[in-house]
Amino acid sequence: MKARVYIRLKPAILDPQGKAVLHSLQQLGYDEVKSVRIGKLIELEIDNSDPDVMKRIQELSHKILTNPLMETFDIKIDEDDAA
Amino acid sequence: MKARVYIRLKPAILDPQGKAVLHSLQQLGYDEVKSVRIGKLIELEIDNSDPDVMKRIQELSHKILTNPLMETFDIKIDEDDAA
Repeated sequence: MKARVYIRLKPAILDPQGKAVLHSLQQLGYDEVKSVRIGKLIELEIDNSDPDVMKRIQELSHKILTNPLMETFDIKIDEDDAA
Repeated sequence: MKARVYIRLKPAILDPQGKAVLHSLQQLGYDEVKSVRIGKLIELEIDNSDPDVMKRIQELSHKILTNPLMETFDIKIDEDDAA
């Protein structure tokens, strides 16, 4: 199965990379864009024979993939590998 | 409105960052993880008064946010700003 982990900066955390992209977009005429925040999308291919697989994905996302001080995450599971 | 742009490396493109994360996960005992691919999640806050707004989001995603040689993108629109 495939697990997608969406990682975002917490709202209180400044995002200089996003600010730089926003500035570029506005310079290039995309004035309708008012804010840009950049996060991560991590796709994991997982052997789901373990019955605790969801708990383990939660755990590795919290402990390893994200920095819980600065980031939050959501997990989406895709049982069908084709997606 | 909010637009989310999900950017992924094309399948044929190597992902050394993902490989490094995979290696760390396996070292730490998460052997069920078989592959890791790392992409980007870009959240745009957009003033949607322009009737062509979807076309413009497509355009800026293609021209500016992604490298079309190496990456693909999907866009999701969230009319409700609360999400």
